[in-house]
Amino acid sequence: MRLKPPYLMFLGDAPDQLAAKTAQGVVDWRPDICMAQLRLDGCKADLGLTDMTLEEAADKGAKTLILGVANRGGKISTEWIAILVRAIELGFDLASGLHNKLTDIPAIVDAAKMHGRQLFDVRHPTETFAVASGKKRSGKRILPVGTDCSVGKMYTALALTKEMQDRDMKVDFRATGQTGIFIVGEGVSVDAVVSDFISGATETLSPANDDDHWDVVEGQGSLFHASYAGVTIGLIHGSQPDYIVLCHEPTRLHMRGLPDFPLPSLTQCMEANLNAARLTNPNVKCIGIAINTKAFSEEEAEAFLKKTEAEMGLPTVDPVRSGVGRLVDALS
Amino acid sequence: MRLKPPYLMFLGDAPDQLAAKTAQGVVDWRPDICMAQLRLDGCKADLGLTDMTLEEAADKGAKTLILGVANRGGKISTEWIAILVRAIELGFDLASGLHNKLTDIPAIVDAAKMHGRQLFDVRHPTETFAVASGKKRSGKRILPVGTDCSVGKMYTALALTKEMQDRDMKVDFRATGQTGIFIVGEGVSVDAVVSDFISGATETLSPANDDDHWDVVEGQGSLFHASYAGVTIGLIHGSQPDYIVLCHEPTRLHMRGLPDFPLPSLTQCMEANLNAARLTNPNVKCIGIAINTKAFSEEEAEAFLKKTEAEMGLPTVDPVRSGVGRLVDALS
Repeated sequence: MRLKPPYLMFLGDAPDQLAAKTAQGVVDWRPDICMAQLRLDGCKADLGLTDMTLEEAADKGAKTLILGVANRGGKISTEWIAILVRAIELGFDLASGLHNKLTDIPAIVDAAKMHGRQLFDVRHPTETFAVASGKKRSGKRILPVGTDCSVGKMYTALALTKEMQDRDMKVDFRATGQTGIFIVGEGVSVDAVVSDFISGATETLSPANDDDHWDVVEGQGSLFHASYAGVTIGLIHGSQPDYIVLCHEPTRLHMRGLPDFPLPSLTQCMEANLNAARLTNPNVKCIGIAINTKAFSEEEAEAFLKKTEAEMGLPTVDPVRSGVGRLVDALS
Repeated sequence: MRLKPPYLMFLGDAPDQLAAKTAQGVVDWRPDICMAQLRLDGCKADLGLTDMTLEEAADKGAKTLILGVANRGGKISTEWIAILVRAIELGFDLASGLHNKLTDIPAIVDAAKMHGRQLFDVRHPTETFAVASGKKRSGKRILPVGTDCSVGKMYTALALTKEMQDRDMKVDFRATGQTGIFIVGEGVSVDAVVSDFISGATETLSPANDDDHWDVVEGQGSLFHASYAGVTIGLIHGSQPDYIVLCHEPTRLHMRGLPDFPLPSLTQCMEANLNAARLTNPNVKCIGIAINTKAFSEEEAEAFLKKTEAEMGLPTVDPVRSGVGRLVDALS
């Protein structure tokens, strides 16, 4: 899988801005490859890009139509099919982050075959993975881990990658979810891999590399999330991180979607993740803490970061407010 | 899924006894439902059952043909297809534990449709599972966990179930792998479930029940196995065990298939499993240790069990040599 830029961002008839969250993530991190947006009647989302028709975007050289939108049920609408077929006829590849598959819609499959275009259902890995070998690979790896799901692991990983690129370090972001895959054009949705192959898929995603090369692997789930910990531990074992970064959102009252489950403490979370990671990399260390302080005022945020840093004895940043420079400083 | 007994055990052209390991497990635990075996020319395996043709077994009332055999590559041979179609014509359902699917072979699918018979690919769950809720369910649950893969977790679970049945306790064995599924006729191959749904599938497998009902859930993998720990932790979180039993094979030199990975100590293994299990059941306890002492003489075995029991302070048995009565005694 390798998505071809530039992208035309398809927003369909998204009912609100939140439904375009995935597309927005791609625009935030890769404005250089997001050429324009395509909105249908009734679309309530706006990425701040130029609106173009399929024909206009094709004329200007857009190569892939990105379906980075969630309508009700996360499905490809039947109303979209004619437009998607037209996109294929105009030369677009299609890449979808929705639950149902482009490759299950006969009209789309037929058009792609006829016009020699590619269909990417990024939530549905088509690759066959080997069972993990656990063998140590060359190169260095960083993995953000979280007290919960959706606490800023992807943002932290992307911010680390950008900071390391800015410092001319050899670095790749390794995407493990749909937004990340759209951003870098490749990756594996690890939560959609068959359970036996979670670690194996992660090994494939982050292969042996130069000794001074860094992979920043996108984290998923949390060891403390009763629904998803299997994905998390497989990702930890397969990525063999040299360094973990602890990610946290301090206003979360309970584990996401699980009202009866309190969040772990930062110490408890760090220890459990280091313990799990030691199985495939006994030298793993935690280099610092990334807090999403969006809900706080500037003063509250500063105080919270200081307090956490004092308690944990590790560099503590908000990747948005303060950047991740201090975390990258701590790498060796 | 619900396999109909009695079974005709299909051994095909199994190259040796080991290739029929799955079928042998079914015969060992359920001789009452294994009516006969069907062997082709060149078959080198023998389950000690009466040999019957398809026609003879159908006449005597066999309902399901079980493909519990591994030929090279774990695949359904093309040479078998005509026989399998004939079985369907004679009224058999087919149940396969092989890697490729009965439902991917057009001749078999067509025959099953025409004759109204069912095809079960027990390694490939067809059910759609919900994401785990983590909500505590009524009833009690036991889960054997292991220092490694293939150390006797299924045997221990089946022995516990039998002992509890003999004591007139309300108990069900919940199968999570192919042999277990053939033995009880239903279950879920959890290692073939998409990663996001490991815990959810386990919750479905072991639903809420009477307060005095016990589920003995078949364990899979090991938290210390770098390839499969994701399956294990999902199974732990989803099954919410009240009690775990620690399973171990003392002559294992390294983790199965991973020469660079030593086995954890029993204490380390018990603590890691209890820690993981506490997330969904804070009251979980370890009731004892099940050791596979097959490689030892009677004296060696006895000495090893005694030594382990003294070191760990928990009832320590070999389910084969000494039974699991002392483990069941420890339940409350």
